[in-house]
Amino acid sequence: MTVMTIALASDHAGYQFKAELKAFLESRGYETLDLGTDGPESVDYPDFADAMARAIVGGAAQRGVLICGTGIGISIAANRHKGVRAALCTEPTSARLAREHNDANVLALGARVIGPEIAKDCLTAFLTTAFEGGERHSRRVGKLG
Amino acid sequence: MTVMTIALASDHAGYQFKAELKAFLESRGYETLDLGTDGPESVDYPDFADAMARAIVGGAAQRGVLICGTGIGISIAANRHKGVRAALCTEPTSARLAREHNDANVLALGARVIGPEIAKDCLTAFLTTAFEGGERHSRRVGKLG
Repeated sequence: MTVMTIALASDHAGYQFKAELKAFLESRGYETLDLGTDGPESVDYPDFADAMARAIVGGAAQRGVLICGTGIGISIAANRHKGVRAALCTEPTSARLAREHNDANVLALGARVIGPEIAKDCLTAFLTTAFEGGERHSRRVGKLG
Repeated sequence: MTVMTIALASDHAGYQFKAELKAFLESRGYETLDLGTDGPESVDYPDFADAMARAIVGGAAQRGVLICGTGIGISIAANRHKGVRAALCTEPTSARLAREHNDANVLALGARVIGPEIAKDCLTAFLTTAFEGGERHSRRVGKLG
């Protein structure tokens, strides 16, 4: 079985959260690709969303995790890119539905909104739920480009 | 004082929620622009996100509210459009921060995730909070296009 590679990227508000989720993913046997940032110095979230888009669209990673203070800015930036479907989640039910209905390939999280245990449950739901497929959902995902 | 026009759009999962928020907005003195859908017949969320983008970018509305089951699909679709900054929120703190930091012009909500009273509080925060501005936030919003 091919091991899935999960890319992670965050701004300065999320770099510690990113480190914790990276360790969690590795403990579960996933490969990770860390796109930064790696410290508290102020950076611009769109730059890290763009790096994620390159990793996902280019095939370097099959899934991604994006983190900023609320998850909002970085998910807007990621969704500017066709082929990226970034789902901002604050609880695991939405993470499951984002996979089942929207075939989301990036999970966006807000490090100043939710705690790391909720984030890990979101991530587990996101990585272990399949796209439901079917004509209806596939047609809608197709319209996203 | 010019009255702000708020556009509303949803898929079939959100049309009743949309009606409730529309009445709430009108009771608060806002003009509304209802872009549908208006019944339980199954429709595709990207079509309604596209209609919202036309209303916001074209200037028919100054702000928008988008609703689907989770808010995820419709916010991904809306954020495909430059000039649209759709913030998916499940609580008012994020709605406030989406205005202060991201200058969000569309609030996305999940009708199957949050209840209408939380949604109204999100909407109030979204409509009454100004963009903080400043070089840092403006530069990042500028990078979103």
